[in-house]
Amino acid sequence: MDILFASETEKAEFWLPLLQRALPQDRFFVGEERSCDVALLATPPAGTLARLKGVKLIQSLWMGVDKLLADPEYPRGVPLARLIDPGMVAAMSESVLAHVLDWHRHHDRYRAQQARSEWRRFKQYLASDRTIGILGLGELGSDAARKLAALGFRVAGYSRRPKQLAGVQSFTDLDAMLPLCNALVCLLPLTPSTRGIVNGKNLALLKPHSCVINVARGGHVVVGDLLKSLDSGHLGHAYLDVFDSEPLPPASPLWKHPGVTITPHSAALTEPRTAIAKIVENVERVRRGETPLYLVDFDAGY
Amino acid sequence: MDILFASETEKAEFWLPLLQRALPQDRFFVGEERSCDVALLATPPAGTLARLKGVKLIQSLWMGVDKLLADPEYPRGVPLARLIDPGMVAAMSESVLAHVLDWHRHHDRYRAQQARSEWRRFKQYLASDRTIGILGLGELGSDAARKLAALGFRVAGYSRRPKQLAGVQSFTDLDAMLPLCNALVCLLPLTPSTRGIVNGKNLALLKPHSCVINVARGGHVVVGDLLKSLDSGHLGHAYLDVFDSEPLPPASPLWKHPGVTITPHSAALTEPRTAIAKIVENVERVRRGETPLYLVDFDAGY
Repeated sequence: MDILFASETEKAEFWLPLLQRALPQDRFFVGEERSCDVALLATPPAGTLARLKGVKLIQSLWMGVDKLLADPEYPRGVPLARLIDPGMVAAMSESVLAHVLDWHRHHDRYRAQQARSEWRRFKQYLASDRTIGILGLGELGSDAARKLAALGFRVAGYSRRPKQLAGVQSFTDLDAMLPLCNALVCLLPLTPSTRGIVNGKNLALLKPHSCVINVARGGHVVVGDLLKSLDSGHLGHAYLDVFDSEPLPPASPLWKHPGVTITPHSAALTEPRTAIAKIVENVERVRRGETPLYLVDFDAGY
Repeated sequence: MDILFASETEKAEFWLPLLQRALPQDRFFVGEERSCDVALLATPPAGTLARLKGVKLIQSLWMGVDKLLADPEYPRGVPLARLIDPGMVAAMSESVLAHVLDWHRHHDRYRAQQARSEWRRFKQYLASDRTIGILGLGELGSDAARKLAALGFRVAGYSRRPKQLAGVQSFTDLDAMLPLCNALVCLLPLTPSTRGIVNGKNLALLKPHSCVINVARGGHVVVGDLLKSLDSGHLGHAYLDVFDSEPLPPASPLWKHPGVTITPHSAALTEPRTAIAKIVENVERVRRGETPLYLVDFDAGY
């Protein structure tokens, strides 16, 4: 089959040798204007999507597909698959654990003290004293939930439909979950119904001095509300990896806020070494005329 | 039985109600000069040890007993038990994971960038790309090792005697282990043979840009060697929780070094709620005339 690779962010020189070795009978090409059977995309160059009518599968190189779905040139009727990359899922849980533990062990506050050469110990809590709320219990949320529960944290999870996960209290009512939470981790897909979910009303429901961790999409957080909650002393700390505009503009007040830790959309990157097997699986399914895995539900938006 | 509680750091008002409730038939007292059957100690006031000749058991309220052992007034022949507190063991692993993940996900470097409003992403590694070396595979080291291995890290462990731990490569030869390591975690007891083990020779054996995490005792690290290794660019970062002199003096160059993260000996505190059961167990063993648990080997020094 003919397979297009088109991305302004993922590097073809990393991906193509791995793809070609895993799928030796297929023909990979980058950016040429010719027809293809499958297109591998992440932030494709302008005009790419409009040329993909009739393609058998658009395989995202990323887990998040909100940008592809929002593109008015997306070719209607072409199936779109998310990439569920085990390396990326593990990376996301590492980042979530790093932030939860940074806050749980007061490392954010100890760093502020270090800047003043100040030695003062804060009260230690057991993991079982803390409830970590997770927004979204899909591939990412459920992996993070499982690993947090294994460390002894109480874990609550919010999803559209109730989920059965060992050690996780499942909620479909956000107002019921938030008052239990000392920390809130956003791992939702960005859809019209999740945009702005981390807003003033919901932040006010969290326990005092909670932390917020957003590793999903910038659009989930109402930044003005977040800063107000931090400045009022209600919210303890915010770990933000994603922003409406990236790179985060130098003028953003988030950069210098003492209650905000910023990472450059680095919480979880697609890892070609572990992702290739998932792409190969879907290419083989297309070849055999079977339904690919992880197809996007265009109505749900993820 | 009569049980003395003597500590200049642990608060009697927290401990005594819990102890009295757990051991209602025993008589607890603080600081009075009268005989006792068991003494519960952590940094006892000067003169306390000299009065404890003939006591059936000295039960430390801490895991580390190096200060008690180094005290020339320690009453010879009185058995000494370390406190293996499950809450403290869990807390230590949380702190170790927090620091390993902070370094693994480049959060230390992203914080330095945030101070300059700089947005730049570093190469992502899989946990399986990293080998975490653990000095000491006792109660603390083996728990941290297990939790790191569960996240996919390669784990190497150094101990005096070889250990069989799932997912952990056991070493008794430090020179053989260090060249494999990207991170080194010190969880050893402080003894004459472990003092100064994190020195220039051993740091030079680590892989370039490694991190060092010392959550054991200040005496394990040769601070001058550590700073030289950081300044040369060989060592990537140091997370230090313990120091020769505590509180760390304001004049210490460690406070302001960009490659050093300091916490105020807070990596793991004894947690009365989980420790009480272990103290009760040893008091009951003394009452029944049995050998207490976790007795210190005075020759080994822990």
